[in-house]
Amino acid sequence: MSRLRVQNIAVSLDGFAAGPSQSLEEPLGIGGGRLHEWAFDTRFFHEMTGQPGGSEGIDNDFLDRGFEGIGAWILGRNMFGPIRGGWPDEEWRGWWGDSPPYHCPVFVLTHHARPDLVMDGGTTFHFVTEGIEVALERAKAAAGDLDVRLGGGAATVQQYLRAGLVDELQFAIVPFLLGSGERLLDGLEEVAGDFDCVEMVSSEAVTHVRLVRRGAST
Amino acid sequence: MSRLRVQNIAVSLDGFAAGPSQSLEEPLGIGGGRLHEWAFDTRFFHEMTGQPGGSEGIDNDFLDRGFEGIGAWILGRNMFGPIRGGWPDEEWRGWWGDSPPYHCPVFVLTHHARPDLVMDGGTTFHFVTEGIEVALERAKAAAGDLDVRLGGGAATVQQYLRAGLVDELQFAIVPFLLGSGERLLDGLEEVAGDFDCVEMVSSEAVTHVRLVRRGAST
Repeated sequence: MSRLRVQNIAVSLDGFAAGPSQSLEEPLGIGGGRLHEWAFDTRFFHEMTGQPGGSEGIDNDFLDRGFEGIGAWILGRNMFGPIRGGWPDEEWRGWWGDSPPYHCPVFVLTHHARPDLVMDGGTTFHFVTEGIEVALERAKAAAGDLDVRLGGGAATVQQYLRAGLVDELQFAIVPFLLGSGERLLDGLEEVAGDFDCVEMVSSEAVTHVRLVRRGAST
Repeated sequence: MSRLRVQNIAVSLDGFAAGPSQSLEEPLGIGGGRLHEWAFDTRFFHEMTGQPGGSEGIDNDFLDRGFEGIGAWILGRNMFGPIRGGWPDEEWRGWWGDSPPYHCPVFVLTHHARPDLVMDGGTTFHFVTEGIEVALERAKAAAGDLDVRLGGGAATVQQYLRAGLVDELQFAIVPFLLGSGERLLDGLEEVAGDFDCVEMVSSEAVTHVRLVRRGAST
């Protein structure tokens, strides 16, 4: 059974997955860049960015696990780029250069249709205008027996959580106060009780938390 | 230098220090009772409630440390009791029976004056109607060289945080989603950057986090 998994979303101690005022210059919002620093030192990140070495350990394990068994991704529009509203042209091709780190089909939620975008390394961006359920159906069809990873951002994760469609929600708590921005876990009154925390472990850098929806396969 | 310390406030993964609809029957709000279960097994809690035994370890250490060097407490009105508005009489004497666990002066923030209330075991409740600064002055005077502990609730902690008066903010993240209630860390845009996280460590049960205001003594 293919599952929908949220993995390695970084949140501040006060629960923000991005700072305020996201833009081309500050994709994670003001102050939000610090949310991802814990990953920079890992072997995972070194490999992704073509550097030698990098640390093993808990943080690296969680980053590795986040990519294991994933056959497709779903991203909110803002995860793909800073452009709001209609596409002015097809020049913007994502945050990641010619070869994005997905290496599989990626379904981008948007209100504005756009042709598929085939990138190097096996990533194809599909732009889905029919809503979150259709995106999930298409992603599951593309993933086959593998799981679908929901990459964010916070608003997109919340939509899927409220719809009861997320099977696993795993995130990293980064030890600083961001003060404002986009909360990851908000407006979840109706579904909070559906999840069990099956793992909570601190590394030197962050605390990793893994929640599983009751009844979902692990 | 006497410091103002917040210690062992329990928050859910989604940041709530109490559930909604606090009342006499549910002092921590609906679902909020689960926030404190991690403490029940400790030697600290066993001693406080007159039971033998109890577990040692990280959780017990943090609970012990929370009481070390404390000479006075400050509590928000709702931490003292469920009564809102004026005092109907002086019958309500706190949540804790005749011998509260403070054993020192406790300053209760309220808009409604009331005579000092002397309890067994060294606790005296003083009711302060002149606001948070006056309560802190009086508590520091009472504590002498010792620190003042700010016991909560969430709204009271936020008031002191926003006023730049908290030197140490230590809390425990409890691994479940509460869904709604009172957030501990909210509305802190102006002061979030003043704190450094000096400790984050997971036990089997919770993750303990300790933040220190830059420039405050540790």
